[in-house]
Amino acid sequence: MADDLDHDSVAHGMQPEDTPELRALYQGFAEESLIPLWTQLGDLMPMHPKSKAVPHVWKWSKLLPLAEASGALVPVGRGGERRAIGLANPGLAPNAYISPTLWAAIQYLGPRETAPEHRHSQNAFRFVVEGEGVWTVVNGDPVRMSRGDLLLTPGWMFHGHHNDRDAPMAWIDGLDIPFSQQMDVGFFEFGSDKVTDYATPNYSRAERLWAHPGLRPLSGLQDTVSSPLPAYRWEHTNAALTEQLLLEDEGQPATFEPGHAAIRFTNPTTGGDVMPTIRCQFHRLRAGAASKERREVGSNVFQVFEGQGAVVLNGVRTQLETGDMFVAPSWIPFAFEAETQFDLFRFSDAPIMERLNFMRQAVSE
Amino acid sequence: MADDLDHDSVAHGMQPEDTPELRALYQGFAEESLIPLWTQLGDLMPMHPKSKAVPHVWKWSKLLPLAEASGALVPVGRGGERRAIGLANPGLAPNAYISPTLWAAIQYLGPRETAPEHRHSQNAFRFVVEGEGVWTVVNGDPVRMSRGDLLLTPGWMFHGHHNDRDAPMAWIDGLDIPFSQQMDVGFFEFGSDKVTDYATPNYSRAERLWAHPGLRPLSGLQDTVSSPLPAYRWEHTNAALTEQLLLEDEGQPATFEPGHAAIRFTNPTTGGDVMPTIRCQFHRLRAGAASKERREVGSNVFQVFEGQGAVVLNGVRTQLETGDMFVAPSWIPFAFEAETQFDLFRFSDAPIMERLNFMRQAVSE
Amino acid sequence: MADDLDHDSVAHGMQPEDTPELRALYQGFAEESLIPLWTQLGDLMPMHPKSKAVPHVWKWSKLLPLAEASGALVPVGRGGERRAIGLANPGLAPNAYISPTLWAAIQYLGPRETAPEHRHSQNAFRFVVEGEGVWTVVNGDPVRMSRGDLLLTPGWMFHGHHNDRDAPMAWIDGLDIPFSQQMDVGFFEFGSDKVTDYATPNYSRAERLWAHPGLRPLSGLQDTVSSPLPAYRWEHTNAALTEQLLLEDEGQPATFEPGHAAIRFTNPTTGGDVMPTIRCQFHRLRAGAASKERREVGSNVFQVFEGQGAVVLNGVRTQLETGDMFVAPSWIPFAFEAETQFDLFRFSDAPIMERLNFMRQAVSE
Amino acid sequence: MADDLDHDSVAHGMQPEDTPELRALYQGFAEESLIPLWTQLGDLMPMHPKSKAVPHVWKWSKLLPLAEASGALVPVGRGGERRAIGLANPGLAPNAYISPTLWAAIQYLGPRETAPEHRHSQNAFRFVVEGEGVWTVVNGDPVRMSRGDLLLTPGWMFHGHHNDRDAPMAWIDGLDIPFSQQMDVGFFEFGSDKVTDYATPNYSRAERLWAHPGLRPLSGLQDTVSSPLPAYRWEHTNAALTEQLLLEDEGQPATFEPGHAAIRFTNPTTGGDVMPTIRCQFHRLRAGAASKERREVGSNVFQVFEGQGAVVLNGVRTQLETGDMFVAPSWIPFAFEAETQFDLFRFSDAPIMERLNFMRQAVSE
Repeated sequence: MADDLDHDSVAHGMQPEDTPELRALYQGFAEESLIPLWTQLGDLMPMHPKSKAVPHVWKWSKLLPLAEASGALVPVGRGGERRAIGLANPGLAPNAYISPTLWAAIQYLGPRETAPEHRHSQNAFRFVVEGEGVWTVVNGDPVRMSRGDLLLTPGWMFHGHHNDRDAPMAWIDGLDIPFSQQMDVGFFEFGSDKVTDYATPNYSRAERLWAHPGLRPLSGLQDTVSSPLPAYRWEHTNAALTEQLLLEDEGQPATFEPGHAAIRFTNPTTGGDVMPTIRCQFHRLRAGAASKERREVGSNVFQVFEGQGAVVLNGVRTQLETGDMFVAPSWIPFAFEAETQFDLFRFSDAPIMERLNFMRQAVSE
Repeated sequence: MADDLDHDSVAHGMQPEDTPELRALYQGFAEESLIPLWTQLGDLMPMHPKSKAVPHVWKWSKLLPLAEASGALVPVGRGGERRAIGLANPGLAPNAYISPTLWAAIQYLGPRETAPEHRHSQNAFRFVVEGEGVWTVVNGDPVRMSRGDLLLTPGWMFHGHHNDRDAPMAWIDGLDIPFSQQMDVGFFEFGSDKVTDYATPNYSRAERLWAHPGLRPLSGLQDTVSSPLPAYRWEHTNAALTEQLLLEDEGQPATFEPGHAAIRFTNPTTGGDVMPTIRCQFHRLRAGAASKERREVGSNVFQVFEGQGAVVLNGVRTQLETGDMFVAPSWIPFAFEAETQFDLFRFSDAPIMERLNFMRQAVSE
Repeated sequence: MADDLDHDSVAHGMQPEDTPELRALYQGFAEESLIPLWTQLGDLMPMHPKSKAVPHVWKWSKLLPLAEASGALVPVGRGGERRAIGLANPGLAPNAYISPTLWAAIQYLGPRETAPEHRHSQNAFRFVVEGEGVWTVVNGDPVRMSRGDLLLTPGWMFHGHHNDRDAPMAWIDGLDIPFSQQMDVGFFEFGSDKVTDYATPNYSRAERLWAHPGLRPLSGLQDTVSSPLPAYRWEHTNAALTEQLLLEDEGQPATFEPGHAAIRFTNPTTGGDVMPTIRCQFHRLRAGAASKERREVGSNVFQVFEGQGAVVLNGVRTQLETGDMFVAPSWIPFAFEAETQFDLFRFSDAPIMERLNFMRQAVSE
Repeated sequence: MADDLDHDSVAHGMQPEDTPELRALYQGFAEESLIPLWTQLGDLMPMHPKSKAVPHVWKWSKLLPLAEASGALVPVGRGGERRAIGLANPGLAPNAYISPTLWAAIQYLGPRETAPEHRHSQNAFRFVVEGEGVWTVVNGDPVRMSRGDLLLTPGWMFHGHHNDRDAPMAWIDGLDIPFSQQMDVGFFEFGSDKVTDYATPNYSRAERLWAHPGLRPLSGLQDTVSSPLPAYRWEHTNAALTEQLLLEDEGQPATFEPGHAAIRFTNPTTGGDVMPTIRCQFHRLRAGAASKERREVGSNVFQVFEGQGAVVLNGVRTQLETGDMFVAPSWIPFAFEAETQFDLFRFSDAPIMERLNFMRQAVSE
């Protein structure tokens, strides 16, 4: 354990002298399923979060061709359930976790294919960086998936997907699978082998009921744990970000920081996060703007939606283009630089950290 | 007090015999600022709410000409502050209260007039049943007032109004003045004798920041007591109600009751009521539909926005047209009948009743 | 109205000229149940709360003999319900209100008498400044009433009282009757003409379940609107105040201000106030200590429990002894001076003001 | 992976045929840090929680002698920080986790020894099954540790321990270390090498301020994330449980289930759990009583405080005596049988499960 000892962790001072008595004691511990704290303290309780997860960037130019190749080789249907390819954090092998709490994958659905219905405790969303033509059916309500849209599938809602077109479509899935797997909270149930409604409306029934700013149906006065809104449309997101930058131009307080507009997707019944474990946000930097360097407890995943720019992750600068994804594990600093107008979708486990009182944030000046 | 005694209230049983000793006792009470419970119980603690306020209907065809006449005769400006005419419940004379908690008035602003800025603890809103051309300036942010819009002025926000046109405009004000006056909670402060910004934008800055469904600016993550959204536009209200009725046509659960769509205006930071004392809603009945008869604790005020129909208030049916207003005091039953599509704006003190745990509701079958 | 006009209220500037046209307009208003704002603004919206209620002190030396005299002359039983004598604020005549929201009364029960059971929406408590021997039966659970105890009867709980001794007993009742009467929220229901349980246990069943610091029965995990604890015993109140002053002696932060210990009675399921409309507190000043002068929105009522001292109410100093009561209406400054150790029970409508966002407080330096 | 496939998990149906193209695809995945969902679905998303943690019992008769032996062989002090021996779930090797979220250890402090001060994000408590003489100093406030007491050290509070006696003492520590380690949320800071206050009062300052049932100091009106009460004393716990069983004898609803009294330790500022991640409870079964069999999401750890009885864990019955500990991992059924009066201390991660909406419970009939 000595190589774990450093000035930035709890030191393993005062290890007991190795004697026959100590060996007998350790043997006794082993027999009784006991492990002493003093042999492992630095690992257990670091001075600050030191994730096994590492900062990592995935290039869309690599992801998409692999997803397309899998479309030809791997069936989708009951059993495998989804043609989804997980972004596996190199520090968390052999698990397909992008972080200790979050799962991110590229999902691919061929022309006219259907991914069958199921439900699970895990909370899920989809984000569409390009393409169209798929409807996700959430508790029987078909929800169009188009470029720039955020689509929700909160825990224990039945859902399947079907492609109504002759072209394939790929998108990003985000879930709390690593959290649920490690914390032993997940239930799963199969539903229809098809989707229960193959209609292809422009707007789902739930959107027609809920997507009116500040208006709540009297048939929906009970607060819900997750958002009743299954889709957050690009036209609204884009308008909100556009207005923030225009207001900033007019000298009004509106942006998150200078040149940096940002919105949080929220549950209209509470004003809080869309799901109990996952926060979703959208960020836009003006061309030429740079964000401050920030770090926070919990993990953050980003996908470039549009534009050219760079992320500085733990001091390492990486150039980014549309579709590129990256993860900032807990307490790893990150900052952005925009060459053009630079749009980023973001999701994180911040609701977990905030609800359990572990959140901390730091900003470099 | 005998005439107050009835089977439906706490009876004044067992009044003490009138003797010299009792008179001396009552004299002692009076000298010491004391009043015995047994002489007044039925009034103090009725079997159910029995408001001094009475159900009453005001006809727009009478209100508007009187408001117009006041425009010629009564100045507006610092001191009088507003050319507003209160709807005075006949049961609450000499107070200009529409109910024990609520104030409702028709306000009139002549061509190019300005109502100066002030602020007060009282929460206020405006609702526009017809007309356009006035901007209300809330904490320096000009908010357009157009037909069908609900405009908020939560407590302690500076506000003034100015008419940008050559035509007058009238609208409805709602406030919690009776509550604040009787409960001694009000503060008042003068602001500018003009409005601080004579701009006439289509959308206020706060709407540009907040009127995006389910989206919250990162610059506005702190929950606010009242809604940060100063205007709820008719196009959104109308769309929400239209969709509810269409969903009902499709066999989906969406309406409040059959043929009756309804929305509540909410604070997007919490999903709750727009202000701490006032609830605002909008109701639409299909042509031919009728609501159930309901009663609830607290007072409800309605204005017909459009259509033909009737209200049955405490068993009395009154025909209604655009602009007509009426009040249902606490525990007075009310029901609606729609001849044409029938749109009603509604406000009430329900947040007071709910937050203090006094709310009760009953529906007649 | 001119005599209402002053520099410290909204001025009635710019009253319209008295003309036949104006008189016709005012006649039209009257016919249509309308009252213009400009004739009444200063009253409706003062610069700060100006209660009709006045600061007032009631002397226990006067109250108790009158209560005793009523014991001989006035029966108690179904109909009159209670032999309670309300402290009527001189500014609120002819109502028996101690403030616009609160009712306070001295209640008197003769030897072996029973006050029959009923329930009502109004929230009630009793506080015992002297005496013993009565049990209040709350939802069938007999609760001993002893010196220094606070006893709760939250809204809609059946309750009656019985005197188990051969001596009479008097105590103080506090309720939200004025609020409920003016706001039209009250329901009332008769119960047994007797009390349903004449047992005289030292501790009620609810205390046995709930009066353990920081411990919650698993049979009571549902939060309740009002406290499930029907009695707050003097031994606990006294101990808490004693410890605060001892901690202050030790240099620890514990008191409300120097020399001034204070506790709030709370609902153990939420940590909040005991009832939705009424706050109860207990204050103790060291001999020689003085409080700062404070004012707050809402009304506060105090009863001296023990000791000698004075209150300065709106600048007027009054000497106080055990049992003396006084009211500080909204925004009236009050301060205390203790000659001996000085104990005061306090109740107020602060939960109403806080829940509806009207609370403001000011401290004189 | 085939051996993971069973009817009670998501089946790995439709695995693609092994071809050169598929191998190339998988090679591409590996190069880009991608892992497909279809090769691992059953593990990731089981039909119900299937913890790697196993039900396990630790015997006090084995634990205590090993702790005593470590007292002679292992120093305590800065670096090692604590002489604590973790109960390591056999299913979670090589980690010293009793469950995926919880840490439990026996800590041992020799005569006159001091464990130095530090603080960390992790929430901690201690429970004393036997012995006395140690004071834990929490943010400078010395807290006596005696038999039956629950002592809290919420996250980020400085704490150390010192033994004031000539005899050693052992107790149980509970923390959320596994959660914090896996979820990357922990910060740590050294404090004094000694404890900052060697006083040995019977009651800590915080208890003197807070341990009064239903009473809240006015100096402590701000709600706190964790309980401000650092100790829950056995006399209160015992009294609460005793009264529940007496009330049950009297035919009153008071117990959790027949013959089974239980209390939850709560934060008096909110009525909620003592810390954001850990629930603490105490259970007492009458001699001869048996609980129903229950399972719940999340992990539960128990220690027998007194009496003879048995636990049935996942169908396996184990006889238990004072000090014995066991864990029921997520969704593992457990039930109790009491031979004598049977007292059990319990802690769990239920606040995590409830706050993140993952809690489910089932009771066998």
